[in-house]
Amino acid sequence: MSKKIPVGVLAATGSVGQRFVQLLDNHPMFEVVALTGSDRGLGKPYGEVCRWLLAGDMPAWARDLPVLPTTPEAVQVPLVFSGLPADVAKEAEPLFASAGTGVCTNASAYRKEADVPILLPEVNPDQITVLPAQQKNHGWSGWIVTNPNCTSTGMTVALKALQDAFGLKRVFAVSMQALSGAGYPGVPSMDIIDNVVPYVGGEEEKVEWEPRKMLGSVQDGQIELADFVISAHTNRVNVSDGHMVCLTIEFERRASPAQVSEALRDYKAPGVSRDLPSCPRPPILVRTEENRPQPRLDRMSGEGMTTVVGRVRADSLLDCRLVVLSHNTIRGAAGGSLYNAELLACLGYLTA
Amino acid sequence: MSKKIPVGVLAATGSVGQRFVQLLDNHPMFEVVALTGSDRGLGKPYGEVCRWLLAGDMPAWARDLPVLPTTPEAVQVPLVFSGLPADVAKEAEPLFASAGTGVCTNASAYRKEADVPILLPEVNPDQITVLPAQQKNHGWSGWIVTNPNCTSTGMTVALKALQDAFGLKRVFAVSMQALSGAGYPGVPSMDIIDNVVPYVGGEEEKVEWEPRKMLGSVQDGQIELADFVISAHTNRVNVSDGHMVCLTIEFERRASPAQVSEALRDYKAPGVSRDLPSCPRPPILVRTEENRPQPRLDRMSGEGMTTVVGRVRADSLLDCRLVVLSHNTIRGAAGGSLYNAELLACLGYLTA
Amino acid sequence: MSKKIPVGVLAATGSVGQRFVQLLDNHPMFEVVALTGSDRGLGKPYGEVCRWLLAGDMPAWARDLPVLPTTPEAVQVPLVFSGLPADVAKEAEPLFASAGTGVCTNASAYRKEADVPILLPEVNPDQITVLPAQQKNHGWSGWIVTNPNCTSTGMTVALKALQDAFGLKRVFAVSMQALSGAGYPGVPSMDIIDNVVPYVGGEEEKVEWEPRKMLGSVQDGQIELADFVISAHTNRVNVSDGHMVCLTIEFERRASPAQVSEALRDYKAPGVSRDLPSCPRPPILVRTEENRPQPRLDRMSGEGMTTVVGRVRADSLLDCRLVVLSHNTIRGAAGGSLYNAELLACLGYLTA
Amino acid sequence: MSKKIPVGVLAATGSVGQRFVQLLDNHPMFEVVALTGSDRGLGKPYGEVCRWLLAGDMPAWARDLPVLPTTPEAVQVPLVFSGLPADVAKEAEPLFASAGTGVCTNASAYRKEADVPILLPEVNPDQITVLPAQQKNHGWSGWIVTNPNCTSTGMTVALKALQDAFGLKRVFAVSMQALSGAGYPGVPSMDIIDNVVPYVGGEEEKVEWEPRKMLGSVQDGQIELADFVISAHTNRVNVSDGHMVCLTIEFERRASPAQVSEALRDYKAPGVSRDLPSCPRPPILVRTEENRPQPRLDRMSGEGMTTVVGRVRADSLLDCRLVVLSHNTIRGAAGGSLYNAELLACLGYLTA
Repeated sequence: MSKKIPVGVLAATGSVGQRFVQLLDNHPMFEVVALTGSDRGLGKPYGEVCRWLLAGDMPAWARDLPVLPTTPEAVQVPLVFSGLPADVAKEAEPLFASAGTGVCTNASAYRKEADVPILLPEVNPDQITVLPAQQKNHGWSGWIVTNPNCTSTGMTVALKALQDAFGLKRVFAVSMQALSGAGYPGVPSMDIIDNVVPYVGGEEEKVEWEPRKMLGSVQDGQIELADFVISAHTNRVNVSDGHMVCLTIEFERRASPAQVSEALRDYKAPGVSRDLPSCPRPPILVRTEENRPQPRLDRMSGEGMTTVVGRVRADSLLDCRLVVLSHNTIRGAAGGSLYNAELLACLGYLTA
Repeated sequence: MSKKIPVGVLAATGSVGQRFVQLLDNHPMFEVVALTGSDRGLGKPYGEVCRWLLAGDMPAWARDLPVLPTTPEAVQVPLVFSGLPADVAKEAEPLFASAGTGVCTNASAYRKEADVPILLPEVNPDQITVLPAQQKNHGWSGWIVTNPNCTSTGMTVALKALQDAFGLKRVFAVSMQALSGAGYPGVPSMDIIDNVVPYVGGEEEKVEWEPRKMLGSVQDGQIELADFVISAHTNRVNVSDGHMVCLTIEFERRASPAQVSEALRDYKAPGVSRDLPSCPRPPILVRTEENRPQPRLDRMSGEGMTTVVGRVRADSLLDCRLVVLSHNTIRGAAGGSLYNAELLACLGYLTA
Repeated sequence: MSKKIPVGVLAATGSVGQRFVQLLDNHPMFEVVALTGSDRGLGKPYGEVCRWLLAGDMPAWARDLPVLPTTPEAVQVPLVFSGLPADVAKEAEPLFASAGTGVCTNASAYRKEADVPILLPEVNPDQITVLPAQQKNHGWSGWIVTNPNCTSTGMTVALKALQDAFGLKRVFAVSMQALSGAGYPGVPSMDIIDNVVPYVGGEEEKVEWEPRKMLGSVQDGQIELADFVISAHTNRVNVSDGHMVCLTIEFERRASPAQVSEALRDYKAPGVSRDLPSCPRPPILVRTEENRPQPRLDRMSGEGMTTVVGRVRADSLLDCRLVVLSHNTIRGAAGGSLYNAELLACLGYLTA
Repeated sequence: MSKKIPVGVLAATGSVGQRFVQLLDNHPMFEVVALTGSDRGLGKPYGEVCRWLLAGDMPAWARDLPVLPTTPEAVQVPLVFSGLPADVAKEAEPLFASAGTGVCTNASAYRKEADVPILLPEVNPDQITVLPAQQKNHGWSGWIVTNPNCTSTGMTVALKALQDAFGLKRVFAVSMQALSGAGYPGVPSMDIIDNVVPYVGGEEEKVEWEPRKMLGSVQDGQIELADFVISAHTNRVNVSDGHMVCLTIEFERRASPAQVSEALRDYKAPGVSRDLPSCPRPPILVRTEENRPQPRLDRMSGEGMTTVVGRVRADSLLDCRLVVLSHNTIRGAAGGSLYNAELLACLGYLTA
């Protein structure tokens, strides 16, 4: 690819938007030419408007870009990354799709639509095949592709490997989620110091539903849910980054812990997704220590894109127990959207 | 009771032992007359040997008590509280029982014996009836009564109420356990800052087994396990005190969340245990906020003796989901042993 | 005092206001009859409007009190406790004073006025003597008395004992402040996990100025500053409650560490303040362990009202180094205002 | 440099030793050929003996190296990096120096010796000139060079720039130090959760003395102390990595905050140290935000080697206040020793 694709970041001043800006620094395929933000900062340089929250400094090229309004008129590029909040995304993203722009979004607004893929390139690139139906249904020349909720992400990658190998029947999931998953300012410090909050608003529904869509199948331009069932508890813990999920799983075909570990370890991203810049290497890392994965030690595996699994062991009630860790703001948010965009660009879905 | 019963604390300088000393301050039934410790401090005043780890000061009466060896010869009292580590307890506790002393212990060494009750007075005071068999089996004039593992404690109290009301078939349990459960120095700070450790050595086995014994029945001087099954994940989180457990439960008889809440809220300690000084008031507190219980806000409910339950809701796979919180070093350790001792004293099991 | 004084709490739904409600539960002198809040909750029961943030439950009597507007017409009582934010306090508190109400406020709005005492009853009860001048200056029949900034509080108590004994010339102060000092939601958790923030807005100015006023003298109805100088760094650390301050002090008259410890230990509240319900017992606690005070272990000393000092030692540049700890939301906020009110009530400053 | 210098790491299984192994991975000048450890693991592969504590995995080359005894006979290389504890270092390091090996050590055992440099290459490379005297004094063909205490490190770099520009008279220093500074297992989690410990054993003496030696001068083969004076409070806070120090400074020549910032920003490592692989780029980074530096955001500046300064402002008592941050296990420990070794190798001090 001799020339980079110009892209925009919607809601670039927010916490997800900042992660987009950071991960797009020196990206081999994309070049950021437009950043959008709220009214208050319009026209001012991003470096002045944005209170940078990430370790390290804002990339130099971003400092001088003017903050634009979140409209397709202001942001005329073939591809945008959206860090918009769900309610704003609901209004704004279709305008971009209608204007011919591809939208890779972290927002949940359209995840429930049967013609909108929730995409994990190492899991379900085949679900991209609903996009022509999506375009036809809405009269769009662009499209919307979402990435999943940050807690759904890691567990779905692990479940995909197990679905392929043994089939899935029932899954009990209990999450311990990081603070960054709530954005910024997000969780007040007084709520989490020396504490656990056994509730994350709206999360259990997403965790029980999204993996079934991602592991489902495409029928007549619609994505149908896989027919296993998930039960979830979701908790917030005092960790900066990295969502952990304890899974207890019943398969369709029995499998020993050794077979489960092997299936996870041997899992490969589909060929179409395997050589993209953001492809996690490996997609799944199986740790064998008795006390891993741990967020602080393992979240940056594969530059934050790898799903880390550990404690694979037999269960007293179902077939298998294990623990999954995934970096919620990289694999589970901005990094995931980038990976999606790389796949869509390579498959020729960008119209510009 | 006009005169207090003289008692000893074994391993009084350790973290459990200190909590015994703290909770026995001004106890209406017991008076501490003997504190034991390791060789290094023998004969010296407790106030000099013990590095006090709890908030607030060491009780004044404890400061001048000499540190004694952990032998029945040195500690001639009708009752001892044991904060011994499991391996030391295995040797030492039978010597006390043999010498006619009642041993209320926090150690796990004898929990597996069919003639040793794991006692929660608000749950299974009937299991005390195995003590004559225990004494006969070993030729003891004293006895050993254990309290459960700190994670087993709260969930067993909640499960008891549900067993009584609906019967139990299957239980999925995922814990998020406090640092104090590992004693002192316990968990290194570098292991838990910005982190979760998805492993607590030996804990899952205890959590899967102990509740079944406590909720079992006495047959011919032996305690038999209840026949429901538990599957557990145990995790360490960055919380000082208060173990949380997410439970997903299948009953023998269907029950709605409202019925489950009612059964928990209405649960009463058996009459024999109800008026003791340490009886939790109430035994179970059901919180109705969507984000409770939380360790920092709720662990001191009922002065740390009440089991707090929240998030009672339907489940997509089994009958019910809920979250249990219990103070691990009060209800789940020293406070539990005190409650046990109060019951045994009132029932006439002290021989002195 | 046979009958309790009816009082109101302004901004009772906020974090300082909640602490007022908690500490006024069963107060021997005061009875809460009015709670105020923002427009959104007016007329509704406090128990419904207020999201209770403190451990333990809201006092039962508070649940049904209606939330009133913050006006003297709605709150006709001889005394109000104000947890108002500074900008609102600036407008509202004079209205109450003008209507004949005594205002004990935690807000900083009037601390700078020469006729408004910043009151610590164990330190400067004599500064109450400016109140007649205050009333005359403004034509008020009521009055305003403030308590100091939460960081100024503990260090001023310690400095008072040293000023009395040795005189003060120069003080270097570096604080490590708790999260609750920023109110709620206050500090975002992502800003403080695994972190220190070396900046607390506006705090250094207060810490350098307020102690000099409190340790100053009254001249012609005005409070004049003491003439020592303070230099401060203020930092936010990952602690829930309890502000620590490292002090390095130059005295007017040389003093050994032993003499400094003795002066602190022997310090007594002035007679007029000594027997009030909230008087800290003792006013200053000197700990002799090499690693104390510590917020988690020592902040509740004297039920959160005692100033705890430790590490008293010689300095290589000035006369003495030590560390001060004070509970910022009890002694340093709501508890301090209560103590102030108790003193003013006993001295006959309430007009009702 | 066509061929890498073979080096050993003493106490390679400890927390400092692991950081050496990590930082020496792919080092352009050095190649690790020997790792030593305690008796228990002798002869076994490092990968089996060492419980790896750092994020990311142990370098592959290290896994199979056998653990050797800490003797010059077992470790015959021109250069060793020592992560030995001080008491062991005292015995072992001279044996290596005597055998002709250069010892770059993180231990404090020999820092007090007038012929042993405490070396920061960007500060005092001239003090290497005492090495011939050191060799002569002890009859060594090798040598010992130490790096400073981790808290002394960052403040000395900043003070060097200010000494050069304005001269130093008096320095007040208050540290807030990270947990990793105490090694592993180090600080128990129960001691630091929701807490600050205002004491770090032996630290204040080091912080008051070491910078004066590093900023002193060489006279007749001896290092003499600079004649300014430091007063220090040292505290442990709940941060994983990154020591913060609040400094208040009196200069010999007055300087405005702008001049101070400029002197810090313009500071350059001496030419001899400037192009070495580990030279921090820049040596000092001056941040201008009101609330920086912060450990979590800034500790990895310059790959953990840069000293970060912020909050440069006037003081009410002395000339200037500022805050310094330095990564305590990189710049302040293993990374510092590497930088030292690079300088000594380039200057021809390696005898092999």
